[in-house]
Amino acid sequence: MNPCKQRVARLREQMKNRGLDAYIVPSADPHLSEYLPEHWQARTWLSGFDGSAGTLLVTANFAGLWTDSRYWEQAQAQLKGSDIALMQQGQDGVPDMDDWLCTELQPGMKVGADGFTLSMRLAQDLQSALEGVSVRFSCNETLLDNIWPDRPALPLEAIYEHEAPFVSQSRAEKLQQIRKGMEKLGAQWHLLSSLDDIAWTLNLRGSDVSYNPVFLSYLLIGPEQSELFVDAAKLSPELIEKLATDRISIKPYENIGNALAALKDNEKLLIDPARTTIGICQAAASLKRVEALNPSQLLKSRKTAADIQNVRNAMEADGAALCEFFAWFEQAMANGEAVTEVTIDERINAARARQPHFVCPSFATIAGFNANGAMPHYRATPESHAVIEGNGLLLIDSGGQYLNGTTDITRVVPVGQVSESQKADYTLVLKAMIALSRAVFPVGFPAPLLDPIARMPLWQQGLDFGHGTGHGVGYFLNVHEGPQGISHRGYRNLNTGMQEGMITSNEPGLYRPGQWGIRIENLVCNVSGGETEFGRFLKFETLTLCPIDTRCIATHMLDEAERNWLNQYHEQVRNRLQPLVDGAALQWLLERTRPL
Amino acid sequence: MNPCKQRVARLREQMKNRGLDAYIVPSADPHLSEYLPEHWQARTWLSGFDGSAGTLLVTANFAGLWTDSRYWEQAQAQLKGSDIALMQQGQDGVPDMDDWLCTELQPGMKVGADGFTLSMRLAQDLQSALEGVSVRFSCNETLLDNIWPDRPALPLEAIYEHEAPFVSQSRAEKLQQIRKGMEKLGAQWHLLSSLDDIAWTLNLRGSDVSYNPVFLSYLLIGPEQSELFVDAAKLSPELIEKLATDRISIKPYENIGNALAALKDNEKLLIDPARTTIGICQAAASLKRVEALNPSQLLKSRKTAADIQNVRNAMEADGAALCEFFAWFEQAMANGEAVTEVTIDERINAARARQPHFVCPSFATIAGFNANGAMPHYRATPESHAVIEGNGLLLIDSGGQYLNGTTDITRVVPVGQVSESQKADYTLVLKAMIALSRAVFPVGFPAPLLDPIARMPLWQQGLDFGHGTGHGVGYFLNVHEGPQGISHRGYRNLNTGMQEGMITSNEPGLYRPGQWGIRIENLVCNVSGGETEFGRFLKFETLTLCPIDTRCIATHMLDEAERNWLNQYHEQVRNRLQPLVDGAALQWLLERTRPL
Repeated sequence: MNPCKQRVARLREQMKNRGLDAYIVPSADPHLSEYLPEHWQARTWLSGFDGSAGTLLVTANFAGLWTDSRYWEQAQAQLKGSDIALMQQGQDGVPDMDDWLCTELQPGMKVGADGFTLSMRLAQDLQSALEGVSVRFSCNETLLDNIWPDRPALPLEAIYEHEAPFVSQSRAEKLQQIRKGMEKLGAQWHLLSSLDDIAWTLNLRGSDVSYNPVFLSYLLIGPEQSELFVDAAKLSPELIEKLATDRISIKPYENIGNALAALKDNEKLLIDPARTTIGICQAAASLKRVEALNPSQLLKSRKTAADIQNVRNAMEADGAALCEFFAWFEQAMANGEAVTEVTIDERINAARARQPHFVCPSFATIAGFNANGAMPHYRATPESHAVIEGNGLLLIDSGGQYLNGTTDITRVVPVGQVSESQKADYTLVLKAMIALSRAVFPVGFPAPLLDPIARMPLWQQGLDFGHGTGHGVGYFLNVHEGPQGISHRGYRNLNTGMQEGMITSNEPGLYRPGQWGIRIENLVCNVSGGETEFGRFLKFETLTLCPIDTRCIATHMLDEAERNWLNQYHEQVRNRLQPLVDGAALQWLLERTRPL
Repeated sequence: MNPCKQRVARLREQMKNRGLDAYIVPSADPHLSEYLPEHWQARTWLSGFDGSAGTLLVTANFAGLWTDSRYWEQAQAQLKGSDIALMQQGQDGVPDMDDWLCTELQPGMKVGADGFTLSMRLAQDLQSALEGVSVRFSCNETLLDNIWPDRPALPLEAIYEHEAPFVSQSRAEKLQQIRKGMEKLGAQWHLLSSLDDIAWTLNLRGSDVSYNPVFLSYLLIGPEQSELFVDAAKLSPELIEKLATDRISIKPYENIGNALAALKDNEKLLIDPARTTIGICQAAASLKRVEALNPSQLLKSRKTAADIQNVRNAMEADGAALCEFFAWFEQAMANGEAVTEVTIDERINAARARQPHFVCPSFATIAGFNANGAMPHYRATPESHAVIEGNGLLLIDSGGQYLNGTTDITRVVPVGQVSESQKADYTLVLKAMIALSRAVFPVGFPAPLLDPIARMPLWQQGLDFGHGTGHGVGYFLNVHEGPQGISHRGYRNLNTGMQEGMITSNEPGLYRPGQWGIRIENLVCNVSGGETEFGRFLKFETLTLCPIDTRCIATHMLDEAERNWLNQYHEQVRNRLQPLVDGAALQWLLERTRPL
């Protein structure tokens, strides 16, 4: 019997005991992280589906998993035999989970969830939708512990300092800036739940989850003192002492609720409703709240000049690693060696690991050959992957965490013969990427509105792609961070205004299901584009340094400005990487950066 | 003594009698129209400022007029001697009126306004802001009648039918579509206050205000019957009878409040909070309300295929009129005749008036020579205007109301010598206009997000312009209509998704204060851009037919695609207008449409 069936059955017993008619299991932890510690992977444990996004809903006679189009194929396979229905989120005719609940439940029924896995914003929206149909909602339902005997423990990895020369602002300075933001909003206290905000603020890093160098904790910032709620075993006595000199004391992780409840009623607590769970919010129920974006979000997104110079160095190291990798790859293919998507992952990580200040990959490498490349979130596994042979396009999306920066790059390279249709697609994606690279825009301009600049060359041919064109990138932090993002779907979001120092990806794509996929991705940084009587402008500095394979280009489709951009980019890549590579890697660099 | 001083003094007496500490006089009528009947021009009468946008606020010891940057110069001049302060709305450090009230008034004080001049949305926002500082707000304060002895009466112009072949849907069909929208929202009743919605729904037109062929009225749509609240003297007995056969009865204009109050309490009324005054809303206070966009807004914006064919014909007539006008203008300049900005207005109206189905101008012509052209909303008057002489650029923005469509076009033509800087500016604006003309985008794409496509060529040179790039345009209706608009400032607006059949202006500009101004404007229509496996797309068909003066172009700044676009446009203009003009106009057309 499928183990998920038993698990869901046991969940239903718990629901019955608690008088719940529906139970929601989101993909989230108490910090609303993208990557979850195993302890918090309840949705995967219950359903078998291990994609990064998806919510399980269980009622007495229905179980459904809502996930978006990126994961439909994977979910269909993984849910097989579980009796859990795949709800294709965003598909015409498929109701949102909120709508489903409002339609299917009867007045007087009760929905439950663990409030520590739901953001305040989502919980409030759901609550008011359910109220409209007289359905009750409880956020205090932690049913998993009772049915998950071998639930993994919380991670216990060490916490370390992110130090000079890789850090340009002290934690005292950062706390001062945050307190200025609190003061503006009239708040004496500020709770940070989001792990990258905490790591950035305190210049600390950890390894509690894969890829993101963060650690499980809460930070409560007061007018003078701060309290870091974290397992003290993760910090050395020296580090604890050092934090104490900055008036930061260590408290047990699980004490955050009590600490919030103990604050004075007449004081105001600043919390970010999109980055705080309703569970934590309930612990602070007696306090006056100011709901606003965490001040650290904007501060963190604007990298300092020193940070950016560090990232430039990291990009050179990353580029050198990629030269070595690609030189090896081409040689291996020429030699007829058996190269698979999995080999690529191993080789690319190994090349990065030889570079200075490398810490770990910044996400799981996506190496997809032909049809596999058409799945934007494909992951090759030892059990299921393709061998790189014959003709076609190989898409490689990978990145590294370095003490001096976070990288994220996608390149597509030819294998054997490349068809004219493949070249046309590749060239259109390149045109899209170049169009955005050349953009100039007013300071403060909302990032989502830049998306059409990239998409227009594709739209003009009746083509499009389903993901955003760009996401914010952290500084030796999460490879996905806010608040800016270049995706038209986020056009009504707040706080997306472009500011100097923000780093964003530029990664248009084009996917032909069952055939091939193309994505070309550089990281770009907002730098001054000058000031005139019409205002202050920003432009993009391309940070990523790696040749864009010209063998896949239909040259006649590029106009003069685009050719110039590409040639200048390759000149810069050559000049900056040449001193760092030799042998086959140097030969490859020189060959692949020849002007068009 | 400045008459405004006396008027404000008398207003203050009234305020005292009513216990009001502040009184708001917006620029609005009970239909929230852009162009106001004189009866509703209270703000102009009180302050002397006659710009189209601005709000007067009076307290016991302060009077201030809030208006945006378009009008600062004009307001400064017109407010002189009135003791009314100019509040430069949008300027750094100048508080919004709501903020000013919240800061300056004391708890317990009372603000008043005539609720029939405030939208529900604005009134609700103000109310909740004032509540936060314990200031009271009353919307039932109609103080003007008591102090404005010679207040103009309401207009009494005749109402006429908009008929086939210029109308493609009967009013019965339109009402049926609206009732479908009401049903979806669960509303039995729907109140229309916005005059263009009413005119469109009923296929009726009027002349109560300049430029917009609408008439003062309310329309209350019920499940079976509708009631048109209008001065019956405006309709012929035949028309009243004809409306009766469509189950539309005529009621006195002033009875709308009683009619709403008489509706059953258990029924729901659909009203659009952005297009209905709080005054009317109060009359319907006992009813359940559904607040949503008027269904007619989206229906009206999507012109039928037959409407669009009619507009194409109107554009040919309009283009022929412009050939005649420009041929005359060039000849008159060559002959050394004295031509002024005012002459241009007269001549262009006269040329349009000779065309079939012409009704009236669609707005006041903007003819601005050199520095005057740098003021986007400049209006030459008999008292103050420039003579067209010497060297420079002449900007002409004009349009006509025809029974078969509404036109709006801006062209810039050279006078004498044109400098290289002027040519560079002109060419950049042309590049912006062409970039948007060539756009392709998914069906439903939010119109504001297309704005950067037009602005990018200007931004890349550190240039920008302060107005939107495009506004929706009616069909023999208001030259400004929603819901779509191509302005990045409206990016958080709802209901801006592009749909087939919408007509929008494409009018980027560039203004050098004190020197010259450039704007190039065509109307474009959303037509199918094809359907692929990636979705359904829209593209623009350019409707406007008039040469774009190539003598101002720095040819080397155009790329091949831009040159091709322009040559193809001119070929189409030549082919379609040639049969309609002769003599000097034909010569001018042939000369000005020669390929680059």
